[in-house]
Amino acid sequence: MMKECLENVRKNVPLVHSITNYVTVNDVANVLLACGGSPIMSDDEGDVEDITSICGGLNINIGTLNKNTIPSMFLAGKKANELGHVVLLDPVGAGASKLRTDTALQLLKEVKFDVIRGNISEIKTLAFGSGSTKGVDADVADAVNDDNLDKTITYLKELAAWTGSIIAVTGAIDLVCDTEKCYVIRNGRPEMGRITGTGCQLSGMITAFLVANPDNKLEAAAAAVIMMGLAGEIGYHNMQSCDGNATYRNRIIDAIYHMDGETLLAGAKYEIR
Amino acid sequence: MMKECLENVRKNVPLVHSITNYVTVNDVANVLLACGGSPIMSDDEGDVEDITSICGGLNINIGTLNKNTIPSMFLAGKKANELGHVVLLDPVGAGASKLRTDTALQLLKEVKFDVIRGNISEIKTLAFGSGSTKGVDADVADAVNDDNLDKTITYLKELAAWTGSIIAVTGAIDLVCDTEKCYVIRNGRPEMGRITGTGCQLSGMITAFLVANPDNKLEAAAAAVIMMGLAGEIGYHNMQSCDGNATYRNRIIDAIYHMDGETLLAGAKYEIR
Amino acid sequence: MMKECLENVRKNVPLVHSITNYVTVNDVANVLLACGGSPIMSDDEGDVEDITSICGGLNINIGTLNKNTIPSMFLAGKKANELGHVVLLDPVGAGASKLRTDTALQLLKEVKFDVIRGNISEIKTLAFGSGSTKGVDADVADAVNDDNLDKTITYLKELAAWTGSIIAVTGAIDLVCDTEKCYVIRNGRPEMGRITGTGCQLSGMITAFLVANPDNKLEAAAAAVIMMGLAGEIGYHNMQSCDGNATYRNRIIDAIYHMDGETLLAGAKYEIR
Repeated sequence: MMKECLENVRKNVPLVHSITNYVTVNDVANVLLACGGSPIMSDDEGDVEDITSICGGLNINIGTLNKNTIPSMFLAGKKANELGHVVLLDPVGAGASKLRTDTALQLLKEVKFDVIRGNISEIKTLAFGSGSTKGVDADVADAVNDDNLDKTITYLKELAAWTGSIIAVTGAIDLVCDTEKCYVIRNGRPEMGRITGTGCQLSGMITAFLVANPDNKLEAAAAAVIMMGLAGEIGYHNMQSCDGNATYRNRIIDAIYHMDGETLLAGAKYEIR
Repeated sequence: MMKECLENVRKNVPLVHSITNYVTVNDVANVLLACGGSPIMSDDEGDVEDITSICGGLNINIGTLNKNTIPSMFLAGKKANELGHVVLLDPVGAGASKLRTDTALQLLKEVKFDVIRGNISEIKTLAFGSGSTKGVDADVADAVNDDNLDKTITYLKELAAWTGSIIAVTGAIDLVCDTEKCYVIRNGRPEMGRITGTGCQLSGMITAFLVANPDNKLEAAAAAVIMMGLAGEIGYHNMQSCDGNATYRNRIIDAIYHMDGETLLAGAKYEIR
Repeated sequence: MMKECLENVRKNVPLVHSITNYVTVNDVANVLLACGGSPIMSDDEGDVEDITSICGGLNINIGTLNKNTIPSMFLAGKKANELGHVVLLDPVGAGASKLRTDTALQLLKEVKFDVIRGNISEIKTLAFGSGSTKGVDADVADAVNDDNLDKTITYLKELAAWTGSIIAVTGAIDLVCDTEKCYVIRNGRPEMGRITGTGCQLSGMITAFLVANPDNKLEAAAAAVIMMGLAGEIGYHNMQSCDGNATYRNRIIDAIYHMDGETLLAGAKYEIR
């Protein structure tokens, strides 16, 4: 089914509305185009409801939230819910400031999200009301590893039950779960952490995958997470000796552009728990 | 004259003020530098009149318009008109939301534009008050092709008469016309549609070309459109096997950086109707 | 000590809060990651104090200032001062508009900056209340050269005394001085001026260098300036025949990503006056 998940994106060209941060927005747009989707960005209160109405999915990312875009997130989220569209929350920096934590928690109250994607510190903040977010990166102390994997999966499934959302946590090990089933994914490269915005890009891509696979959302989310990690591996393999993080960023998006279902299937490294 | 149009840009280094979206703004700045211009971005009501006054041209792009930047577009547009500067409108997403359509139409009423550049759906929205914009991309049903070319040119010339602007429509076939003369341009590659912002980049570049060629605006606009398409062809030719849309974006800007008047002239594929 | 300055950045991973323009923000984030730091962007009044509190340094860049972000600059700057954090000002376009000049001068009054980094026209505007800024680029008439070097160093040292800040002026010759000592740096390539944002990137990087080298701020600032210029030389050396400014941008960040202390030391071209 992983293979079909990607093929459905390429076939259906899902239109994704992103209210996202201005740091990584260009990469989000290009990754959406690379995977087969179509991006549109809009964040004004007077514009977001119309724009989200013509899309299939909404990607809300609080990376550079402000007093103008926060109300837009609520308006667009509610409108998307009304229309039965896919909605994703990327709680960038939740735990790093009161505004970020409060906004993410309030969004969870007022909007129903299909997926919440973040690093482990952001997700812990949502689960427990506090985490040790180090800026926009996860704290080392929070990292998912083989020792705390079982315990982590247990509380992520509880968070999935509490929120009614698929929870996607990315890091050295990626976890994508609903209340019952957790994909434990071991694709990716540590060097991806030296590029800004691979998480934001993934959030856009997950949204596109869910729009194109409405009857198979958990696997679609997992397929997108695997695709990002695998693209990181392929992109790394394509690096020349003088390439660093700026070029690596492009090589990852390029790898997504070229990836087909067979490659995704063959490269996927995961188990289900 | 195509050749001279480019050479005048490189010689005069036109300073272009862009009020543009935050998705593709970096590429707009780099493409302006690549073609020989100089970019400056400013979108606050308290700043735009001063900034546009020191520039030669103003590029207004409504891609991520909001309640703060919309008034700035009007202020800057009127100031640029007062000073006799070149002004361009890129009505991104006109037809996709009421705010975008209304803002574009109101700008057309209050500001005199030298050029309006958009995809065919956006331009149809301005011409007929409605189009079938699919997000920020043209609807397939609207696409310009050899069957509807004559009819399309006729109404674009009428739109040019109504607005007093040069109309530039980009797609598989590009059209650049005033009331009497239409450049039908067949440069470019379909893969350019898989990169975000080639249209926004082109709008910046057209503005620079008009500033540097004040007595020859229609041909200058056509030269910029040809240059973008030709750069798409050259950039594509320079692609390595693992390059995708992210790298292609850079290769196009790089091709603009290296292009000289001879190359532009030799690669131009157009007829005049 | 140059070598140690870089090594301290890589070892300490300084977290830098940037309130910066949306044109070059992605490159600022990636260059911070490339040199060994960690970026976070936040510009809302309700968010900046929390965010700056968890960081080691604050980078204020007025490139696309607006009525919402200007108050955030003051709030964050004062909070960072309170906490004894490193604070840098990049007065983009000071001299090009009243709002930019006034904001930069008012920031100098209310916030204590460790470093002010700009082109010579922006710095002259701060020093004399007027300069001949041509948009965001320095005016040719202002350029630092061997004829006016002594005179320039003299007034930069006076500006350092007046502001209590390290002054970093970048151009064909880079100058980094406090009241007593001036690094005259001759690294870099003229082609760097054809890329948007190398100055903004450098400001982010200087901030990271100062955070990681609190007892050696002048040399840390000089090391960052040298590193940027040297990366421009290395990146240029790595260019393929079809590469232009878009790819050059990545190659510079890539060169920073790979640079070690030995390379920095061996490639540094400077004298102290």
